[in-house]
Amino acid sequence: MKIQEAEYRERTSRLTAHARDEGLDGVVLFEPTYVLYYVGFAFVPTERPMAFALNADGEGGMLVPRLEREHAQANALVSEVADYPEYPGETHPSEALRSLLAKLGLRDRFGADHDGYPWVLGYRGPTLTELVGVTPTKVTGFIEDQLAIKSRAEIELIRESAKWGNLAHTLLQRYTRPGLTEVEVSQRATNEATLAMLDAIGPIYRAQNPFSEGAAAGYRGQIGRNAAIPHSLTANITFRAGDVLVTGASAAVWGYLSELERTMVIGEPVAEQRVMFDHMVALQDVALENIKPGVKCSDVDRAVRAYYDEHGLWDYWKHHVGHCIGLRYHEGPFLDIGDDTEIKPGMVFTVEPGLYAAGLGGFRHSDTVAVTDDGIEFLTYYPRDLDSLTITS
Amino acid sequence: MKIQEAEYRERTSRLTAHARDEGLDGVVLFEPTYVLYYVGFAFVPTERPMAFALNADGEGGMLVPRLEREHAQANALVSEVADYPEYPGETHPSEALRSLLAKLGLRDRFGADHDGYPWVLGYRGPTLTELVGVTPTKVTGFIEDQLAIKSRAEIELIRESAKWGNLAHTLLQRYTRPGLTEVEVSQRATNEATLAMLDAIGPIYRAQNPFSEGAAAGYRGQIGRNAAIPHSLTANITFRAGDVLVTGASAAVWGYLSELERTMVIGEPVAEQRVMFDHMVALQDVALENIKPGVKCSDVDRAVRAYYDEHGLWDYWKHHVGHCIGLRYHEGPFLDIGDDTEIKPGMVFTVEPGLYAAGLGGFRHSDTVAVTDDGIEFLTYYPRDLDSLTITS
Repeated sequence: MKIQEAEYRERTSRLTAHARDEGLDGVVLFEPTYVLYYVGFAFVPTERPMAFALNADGEGGMLVPRLEREHAQANALVSEVADYPEYPGETHPSEALRSLLAKLGLRDRFGADHDGYPWVLGYRGPTLTELVGVTPTKVTGFIEDQLAIKSRAEIELIRESAKWGNLAHTLLQRYTRPGLTEVEVSQRATNEATLAMLDAIGPIYRAQNPFSEGAAAGYRGQIGRNAAIPHSLTANITFRAGDVLVTGASAAVWGYLSELERTMVIGEPVAEQRVMFDHMVALQDVALENIKPGVKCSDVDRAVRAYYDEHGLWDYWKHHVGHCIGLRYHEGPFLDIGDDTEIKPGMVFTVEPGLYAAGLGGFRHSDTVAVTDDGIEFLTYYPRDLDSLTITS
Repeated sequence: MKIQEAEYRERTSRLTAHARDEGLDGVVLFEPTYVLYYVGFAFVPTERPMAFALNADGEGGMLVPRLEREHAQANALVSEVADYPEYPGETHPSEALRSLLAKLGLRDRFGADHDGYPWVLGYRGPTLTELVGVTPTKVTGFIEDQLAIKSRAEIELIRESAKWGNLAHTLLQRYTRPGLTEVEVSQRATNEATLAMLDAIGPIYRAQNPFSEGAAAGYRGQIGRNAAIPHSLTANITFRAGDVLVTGASAAVWGYLSELERTMVIGEPVAEQRVMFDHMVALQDVALENIKPGVKCSDVDRAVRAYYDEHGLWDYWKHHVGHCIGLRYHEGPFLDIGDDTEIKPGMVFTVEPGLYAAGLGGFRHSDTVAVTDDGIEFLTYYPRDLDSLTITS
């Protein structure tokens, strides 16, 4: 199920080719997502710096603290794992980075995603400019473009994620009842889905994700009165009849994520809720019809915006249509009027235009779709209609 | 229970004073921890940039996407919330940042934690140098030093975190049995502790943490054979007699965290395990005895290292003694031979020297202690002795 070694090698060879094209000795990367993408090594960034360096001949090396040496040796597809004792240590870890770069021949011109290890969790250290006297060429744009086009294997992992997200969401809906709290319902759905997932695919599965160790479903802090505030942090609200709920479900599968969100209503929806729900589904339909290879991302948002215009819905608008998804729950390009990136086969988008009406509720579905040679393929497949999403107790 | 407005104002006034001392017009911060610390607004960084700007007169402003406007208005202690429609949008959000900085008078010289919003989750945008022609003065060191000294209110929140971490850990130990899997046991302990916590303090509680919405307890991927690899990502291992387990428990309380870790053994420990366990407790005792105001952080590590020397334990060493903790689960200063920071009242440290023996297990306790005027005060209080930590089924 996991990404095969040949695919990692193909990924790094493209990065190597880019380095050569740009006249670079190589690249050094600090961003965990990029390291996972190129060498299959998952880690959480801490004050102990880690880095992946790759030279123009394709030789790769990882810098890790002593603490992570065996972990990196067992998992990272590199020819060398260099380690330092500890941060800050008697000798600052940046000296070990300097040695690794010298050994790989990154001397005069090289690329990086960041000018030195970021100052996270109390880390303090020099920039690459300060350390080796070279200001790195930013290669983030190239890497982001590479990540945006998913391989068949990556799409299959996102599809696998969607299956377990679907299970978690099914349980979430089944257990949601007036009088229960959001935390107990989302815990129960999340736990049961994760245990089923581990019983089903545990031996061939790793999460490789810092946020999740399995499947999860919950509420996006958008319950009843709060439903009009997307992305607000949740409190432990008790469900009651009339609540409009915006849900979310996913599962981390070898690092890959899908996104499934639904608008559910507790009890018989009132007329105003029906109207909003129907507009929201229509908005999503407009988006789905417009996503195809050769179209610009901005054109999809523009088509959806035309629907907001036509139906006078701008008071309820809060965000663009969607974003790509993969090793991160959000990534570019974006289905946004300001993003003129051409849509290509292999891109995987969330499609999630929303309507937010204070006092009435937030209305948003999100589906994950892969762009094919002539249109889209749904990776999520949960019911989208109001009857299916009405909770009658 | 939460941090009071007066304390936030005192925090920002110190930052303002620092800006004036440095001849700066003000500062702009992107790091979520810093924003939470100064204005009480918790958010997860995405491709939609957010920033907190503060001028030398103490006027503060937040930049947020439209999506977060109401959330920021309700929570951020600033005089102004500026918003932009969307990222990337028709006009790049950095233009809204430029306007906010101009309005607050950050023109010629100002500080920042980062030269522009970091490129996360697909965000692309200019550095501050590119945007306004000013390379910001890095103020991260000052801010980190400020965060390192906790107020009485902060220590009380960490103590509150420790209580709920203690509950989660008590349940974790109670439910751990041979034949069960780590995921089911940690789920059960985590869920029950979180529900109890919400029933007890829910109305006066917010997590304000991106990683956790309550209490949690689990295993640090350090079970049986894997116990010698600290921080390895967990797989779903089934417990068996003879396993050495390294646990971890915490709870997010208004953003603040504690750390409780214990070494547990399933079944009667073998002699070699007893020896390692006893050395580990002795190492922790050495550390605890040496933490006091006026001592250097490096001195504590040095004292512990002397014990490794004396008892020939270097084959089992993997990391320094500990780190500070607060709004982040790791932060500086570090109890490390390379950190000569003077220990001061108000610092809160984890104390966790470890021993890792391949094939035998990993041995580490972690306690959270606050530095007082003349020594330390334990904020965690779980039993440390082997009898109490032996699981007999």
